[in-house]
Amino acid sequence: MTQIETIRRAAFVGHSPAPFRATWEGPLADLSFAVKDLFDIEGAVTACGNPDRLKAGVIARATAPAVQIPLAAGAQCAGKTHTDEVACGMFGDNEFFGTPINPAAPDRVPGGSSAGSASAVAGGLVDFALGTDTGGSIRVPGSFCGIFGLRTTFGRISVAGVMAMAPSFDTVGWMARSPAVMSRVGEVYFGPTGDLSATRLLLARDAFAIPNPRVAQALLPLARALGPVAEVDLYRGGVAHWLDTFRPLQLGDLHATLGTWAAAEGRQVSASIAQRMALAATVTAADIAPAARWREGLTEHMIDLLGADGVICIPTAHDLPPFVGGGLEQLIEFREKTLALTCVASLARLPQLNIPATMVEGVPVGLSFIAGPRGEERLLAMAATLHAQLPAGRAA
Amino acid sequence: MTQIETIRRAAFVGHSPAPFRATWEGPLADLSFAVKDLFDIEGAVTACGNPDRLKAGVIARATAPAVQIPLAAGAQCAGKTHTDEVACGMFGDNEFFGTPINPAAPDRVPGGSSAGSASAVAGGLVDFALGTDTGGSIRVPGSFCGIFGLRTTFGRISVAGVMAMAPSFDTVGWMARSPAVMSRVGEVYFGPTGDLSATRLLLARDAFAIPNPRVAQALLPLARALGPVAEVDLYRGGVAHWLDTFRPLQLGDLHATLGTWAAAEGRQVSASIAQRMALAATVTAADIAPAARWREGLTEHMIDLLGADGVICIPTAHDLPPFVGGGLEQLIEFREKTLALTCVASLARLPQLNIPATMVEGVPVGLSFIAGPRGEERLLAMAATLHAQLPAGRAA
Repeated sequence: MTQIETIRRAAFVGHSPAPFRATWEGPLADLSFAVKDLFDIEGAVTACGNPDRLKAGVIARATAPAVQIPLAAGAQCAGKTHTDEVACGMFGDNEFFGTPINPAAPDRVPGGSSAGSASAVAGGLVDFALGTDTGGSIRVPGSFCGIFGLRTTFGRISVAGVMAMAPSFDTVGWMARSPAVMSRVGEVYFGPTGDLSATRLLLARDAFAIPNPRVAQALLPLARALGPVAEVDLYRGGVAHWLDTFRPLQLGDLHATLGTWAAAEGRQVSASIAQRMALAATVTAADIAPAARWREGLTEHMIDLLGADGVICIPTAHDLPPFVGGGLEQLIEFREKTLALTCVASLARLPQLNIPATMVEGVPVGLSFIAGPRGEERLLAMAATLHAQLPAGRAA
Repeated sequence: MTQIETIRRAAFVGHSPAPFRATWEGPLADLSFAVKDLFDIEGAVTACGNPDRLKAGVIARATAPAVQIPLAAGAQCAGKTHTDEVACGMFGDNEFFGTPINPAAPDRVPGGSSAGSASAVAGGLVDFALGTDTGGSIRVPGSFCGIFGLRTTFGRISVAGVMAMAPSFDTVGWMARSPAVMSRVGEVYFGPTGDLSATRLLLARDAFAIPNPRVAQALLPLARALGPVAEVDLYRGGVAHWLDTFRPLQLGDLHATLGTWAAAEGRQVSASIAQRMALAATVTAADIAPAARWREGLTEHMIDLLGADGVICIPTAHDLPPFVGGGLEQLIEFREKTLALTCVASLARLPQLNIPATMVEGVPVGLSFIAGPRGEERLLAMAATLHAQLPAGRAA
């Protein structure tokens, strides 16, 4: 097999519909896209990375509105892509269906849970791909595969017809290799970008203290060189407080959403999902109730910090993508530190864009930008300029 | 049967769990609450007003986080209440399970879809009740039954473990007879109210042109007397544009969320739901895509209008609640005009509080207040003062 065919086979699900389009006309008529197999497409099964869902074979009668919008703009849907099982996972390894290839670093994982979408984009198989992001599932594979990845403002794009995982955090977003394609897709979802006021770029000093030093040391000077950058501290109350807010809310949502399904007799789920669901079941109301209130305070803090025109720069992930088959279950610190970075936008319901920044040890590393509510246009308008100032953009 | 027992039997579902509490301690330990049968409660079936769901008998393994929060605060859960079938309905009439009683006007409908919750509150059976609001399902029964009803900012309270109907609009909220109870519940969800700046009260002149004149003429002078009120026009682009934005998005979401379920072989749904699902299936991507972009413009318009400290006053519903059994299916204008009022907060993802305002022909009529994102605290802080200035509050 050619390399591209190898990537394709590992990225797309076996039950994918054949490539199709709704119309030949529209602003995206020259583009193709892939869809994470968490979104319903009429006539296909939505397996969500789980063999029981595939076997049940429920054929969707409707296409998710989030998929209909690029279709109505003329884009060709190339098919459905693999996801971590029920969208729970940071690395893209699916016990049942394999691990999509990271085209930018084939011995390393692509990142998850929107793993097949990231792989298909990075491998040049499609122009863009839809994913979902609850706690980093677009941003992390974006960083690992060296592509752009946008998590959108909570609630801005419909999640109807998309498997719910933790509905307080679930969002739809997309990935692409170029800022131009990112922006064209954005215009289709949100309309043309109006006049944007000048952006205040803020560097979250304390966020750069989180990742592995090889990543932090590569990214920090690049971030500081992005222009006049004000340095701020992000983690009011300390990083642990943010994680202590995110975790019970995310797990409480997960238990409420998938707990009944996962516990059904004879249900086939991987050991890691079973373990995760068991953990989710231990979360009590006494954990959830204060965290829900803390989340409000953290949201207000972020909105105050960003004001009308701020964008905050943070590292996207803790480290280089781990090696395939390298005992991913053991990478507790990796997950914890990455989550400490990704939970900020998730908690505050804000959009975040991963931009490919540089290579470390020959592997892509991304830098992230968080804007205020409905700040996607601001992020996308800045993306090309920021990218051009970074080694990954200068090399391209 | 005593009157209260009659109300109780019509409000609570037959498969309701017996009253229970999680703890005897907490800020709501002296209060009881009812829960719309759209929320999962561990050990109970969530029937969502549909007989097939009841028959399927799936026992929830988890309690929805939105229910866990008042439980953790010590409130007693009195049980589950009737809803319009799959939360689709404005009047509270459920073909399979009957129509809860409107204690304030027993010959009229209670309003829906959070009908049993409104009835239980208005009848004095519980202190507060949880409902959901997609396009008015808390605000309308609040107005019809003469109680307070809060739709919350989209995404502010978790909808995990709550049946999804149109996820771009679905929210959780609550109803109560007194502003004090409304606020106490708000503090449990959102934390204590901080210092609020003074509120600018805005009266949406064009919104008062929508309802039946008997309602508009009763409400308008009351709204104008609420203090220094600036009059504004709300419906940029015209009322029809707002409805043309809301409808395809809501129906598109509905089709994507419940279309596959509703179309399953042998599915038992009422004729009105079958009709609604058939309508939803006709909505195309060409309807959804522009509406999604229009929604962004309407959201920005509302946020600009409200600024940091604005609250907009509008009528809650078109008219007095219709009579029970009065050919509700025919009330197309009633639904259209009420939706024209309720869709504003739904589209802009904003919180809206119904306050009992006055009686018209001996029947309660509510006035509504819309705040900016996360403005629930502002609305709840104002509620007692506003209510005291209105005939319904002066009478109480």
